[in-house]
Amino acid sequence: MAVYTQLTAEDLAKLISHYDVGELVSAKGIAEGVSNSNWLIETTGNAGQGGRYILTMYEFRIELEDLPFFLGLLDLLAEKGCPVPATIHDRQGATHRMITNAQGEPKAVAMIEFLPGVSIDHPEPAQARAVGKALAEIQLAAQDYRGRQNQMAYASWKQLTDDCGADGLARIDPALPAIVAGELEFLAANWPEGLAEGVCHTDLFPDNVLMLGDEVSGLIDFYFSCTEFFAYDFAVTHAAWCFADHGRIFRQDIAAALLEGYESVRKLTDAERAALPVLARGAAMRFVSTRAYDWLNTPADALVMRKDPMDFVRRMQFYADKGAAAFGL
Amino acid sequence: MAVYTQLTAEDLAKLISHYDVGELVSAKGIAEGVSNSNWLIETTGNAGQGGRYILTMYEFRIELEDLPFFLGLLDLLAEKGCPVPATIHDRQGATHRMITNAQGEPKAVAMIEFLPGVSIDHPEPAQARAVGKALAEIQLAAQDYRGRQNQMAYASWKQLTDDCGADGLARIDPALPAIVAGELEFLAANWPEGLAEGVCHTDLFPDNVLMLGDEVSGLIDFYFSCTEFFAYDFAVTHAAWCFADHGRIFRQDIAAALLEGYESVRKLTDAERAALPVLARGAAMRFVSTRAYDWLNTPADALVMRKDPMDFVRRMQFYADKGAAAFGL
Repeated sequence: MAVYTQLTAEDLAKLISHYDVGELVSAKGIAEGVSNSNWLIETTGNAGQGGRYILTMYEFRIELEDLPFFLGLLDLLAEKGCPVPATIHDRQGATHRMITNAQGEPKAVAMIEFLPGVSIDHPEPAQARAVGKALAEIQLAAQDYRGRQNQMAYASWKQLTDDCGADGLARIDPALPAIVAGELEFLAANWPEGLAEGVCHTDLFPDNVLMLGDEVSGLIDFYFSCTEFFAYDFAVTHAAWCFADHGRIFRQDIAAALLEGYESVRKLTDAERAALPVLARGAAMRFVSTRAYDWLNTPADALVMRKDPMDFVRRMQFYADKGAAAFGL
Repeated sequence: MAVYTQLTAEDLAKLISHYDVGELVSAKGIAEGVSNSNWLIETTGNAGQGGRYILTMYEFRIELEDLPFFLGLLDLLAEKGCPVPATIHDRQGATHRMITNAQGEPKAVAMIEFLPGVSIDHPEPAQARAVGKALAEIQLAAQDYRGRQNQMAYASWKQLTDDCGADGLARIDPALPAIVAGELEFLAANWPEGLAEGVCHTDLFPDNVLMLGDEVSGLIDFYFSCTEFFAYDFAVTHAAWCFADHGRIFRQDIAAALLEGYESVRKLTDAERAALPVLARGAAMRFVSTRAYDWLNTPADALVMRKDPMDFVRRMQFYADKGAAAFGL
């Protein structure tokens, strides 16, 4: 939610001179991304038609060696017709470049297509159906893409919640230390094996989906994409989309539409269906762990909006209570 | 440099339904403005052609009663062909509306045209000439517009630096308390009277000018506009544009071009020319006072970039040392 780095118009003009996109017309720092800086760039274009792009400067977290994985994935998916922003390559064919920011630090930057659409906060079933379909489509389209380990799997949930400490968790909610300990134990004992896997988004929150009416116009922010069970990716999306009022209200209609959309492209196997409740508890724990850690480690006066971990504790408990019923199964 | 308020796509769609601009296509929170939140909005447009707008939500400082002054000024200047964003009126003809943000607070919002162009950090003389010309043009175009008192005149410089205290100023630079006291005394004794006045921008920094090559494509951020000496407005622009390296280097070529551009539209009178050195010392003091106050009152870890008051102390001393020579007179 911030632009960390200042880039002058002169810096930007020099940067885009390495791309076949014409001259700089406009550049606005946009308030998106928590671990990188983004600009919406307009140029005169390369064929009489103006072009619009998102320029991203990677500030934290993203390891430089992983950038080719993320950017290559966008290119593959765009090529296969999925609604993702293609990477704009420079004249040498590179997907990213290094530049020096105003503070003299070398930073990686990449330019991707600008896609229209807005992120929905209160989805309708028709929108959830489109999202489920789009999720299955990118999973299938990326099937032959190279793998990358999930950095946000069980070991990270354990580590982050251990780093919070029982005291820290109790400051969020007195019941949280016991809930987390119980869930981690359950998940370790019951995590499924042998489900179909491939490259997954694993972070398909409404923020990361652009929509025009009921159509998905863009899937963005693939920085958590990695090799995972396809059904886990579905469970993350379920947890992200099917609740209202901070996890207090379960939207059965949204959940049914999401599943229907997904299965219109890729049928879940019996083993996947059986595993969904535990996968969803894991998905909820993934966000409980990062949110709890950030909650305790973000200064209250920082301009970054802290996200309440309890929103996902409620989901985790919902999935534990309802089991298969949460998925209409 | 921040988006203070969250607005959902649904909120935005509802808001723009009151305007004759078509349907929402895209909305990005942009990192501009320190006292308001801004979004770059794209719509399907009202005549087959897509439209782009800046939506501003007023968070602080701007008093609601002043909004009609600022927005009416934009309309007048746009109508007279000046490169400023026209206000988009709603279907009832209003220049602004009240909406309730996610925190339940009523906020004023206004929609203005999006203008192309980028803000220049290292201007060339041809660009400074265009800026000088544009400044004189808006001064003349707004000549019959109603007045508004300058809130950032001498009394505010005195108040803000008093609020810093000698201790506070000394923490910025040990010499600053004496410099400020001496300048305030000088300015009180030597401020000119009876110069030509009218509605002025009074904050025409490079940030507030959009350029396409050597052309001014947009003058923006009129939130300090008020009735002032035209020559004071020129002096502010001089202080804002004619220095490099944080006020350490004076760019004689930029200064000459700025004056030439201004005088190609409006000749300075002899009295104005004679007053320029003292007006420029006042202009520098205006930014010393606000920057010093903000420097001492902004937490170091806030994501807002603090601006160094010393950048304008150097300018103030340059004008005091050089007198008329700073203006080639």
